[in-house]
Amino acid sequence: MRSASATTRADEMGMDVAFANAKKSYDEGGLPIGAALVYHGGEEPRVVGQGHNQRIQKASPILHGETAALENAGRLKPEVYRNSTMYTTLRHVSCPCSMCTGAILLYKIPRIVIGENVNFSGEETLLRSRGVEVVVLEDERCKELMGRYVREKPEEWYEDIGETVS
Amino acid sequence: MRSASATTRADEMGMDVAFANAKKSYDEGGLPIGAALVYHGGEEPRVVGQGHNQRIQKASPILHGETAALENAGRLKPEVYRNSTMYTTLRHVSCPCSMCTGAILLYKIPRIVIGENVNFSGEETLLRSRGVEVVVLEDERCKELMGRYVREKPEEWYEDIGETVS
Repeated sequence: MRSASATTRADEMGMDVAFANAKKSYDEGGLPIGAALVYHGGEEPRVVGQGHNQRIQKASPILHGETAALENAGRLKPEVYRNSTMYTTLRHVSCPCSMCTGAILLYKIPRIVIGENVNFSGEETLLRSRGVEVVVLEDERCKELMGRYVREKPEEWYEDIGETVS
Repeated sequence: MRSASATTRADEMGMDVAFANAKKSYDEGGLPIGAALVYHGGEEPRVVGQGHNQRIQKASPILHGETAALENAGRLKPEVYRNSTMYTTLRHVSCPCSMCTGAILLYKIPRIVIGENVNFSGEETLLRSRGVEVVVLEDERCKELMGRYVREKPEEWYEDIGETVS
């Protein structure tokens, strides 16, 4: 799953921004999943949107990491999305969720880089079948932070993916 | 595509609420796509969320009709979503979009009723393949309002689905 492109400076920067958002959310008592949308169609990669899950902070069922980053970016031209990468810290068997997968497909974002995902399955098949490049890093920060949250607050995590604690 | 269940009183009520939201958005200069989430697990069907596209009003790329209705509903227990129907007025070859389709799948909403869709394709196949019941009405109000908007402001509509005017 690891890709050579996962180690570029742009990827490191994108994941740093995503992680900073995840950490911010955790410190607020929220789900620690952050994301960043980085445009790479210019001379230098540029963060055009960033955000984190807002289920706890705003009682929002639709502001996940990726959708929060898209919302923060505001209205963008189609060509910006089509020359951008979505970075997300998330970790779970059902990530990326179908909503965020759908948002990535809607705007034709061609590439997603995931901080870590121990048992990645989720909508990977759907993303790949529609031509999206999926890169999974093994980022220990992301793994540790999300793992800690799921142990501390399993109800909130399961609610976020439409499930109940089993 | 029409279904007998499309003519129930609950469906009429749900679509009326969705249409009222679409009309409100149109009157504000926004995309006239509205939605309502109706819980049918109690004695009487009950609207638990409603909203409309907010691309123009809030510069939002993620608040479509369905996601706006989910956001308005706030945090719900999984069993509420699983006993609800999503009503949406939308009309276009690419509706429901992949993001709203993904949100419906995420929360396991079992049924979607669409006001009208002259050339419905979009993510219908994906929804049906995952067990969601899809009902399409031939609601002339929805057809007329959305048709009018697309003629008046094609750029906004295409932006909303990540496309450029062809």
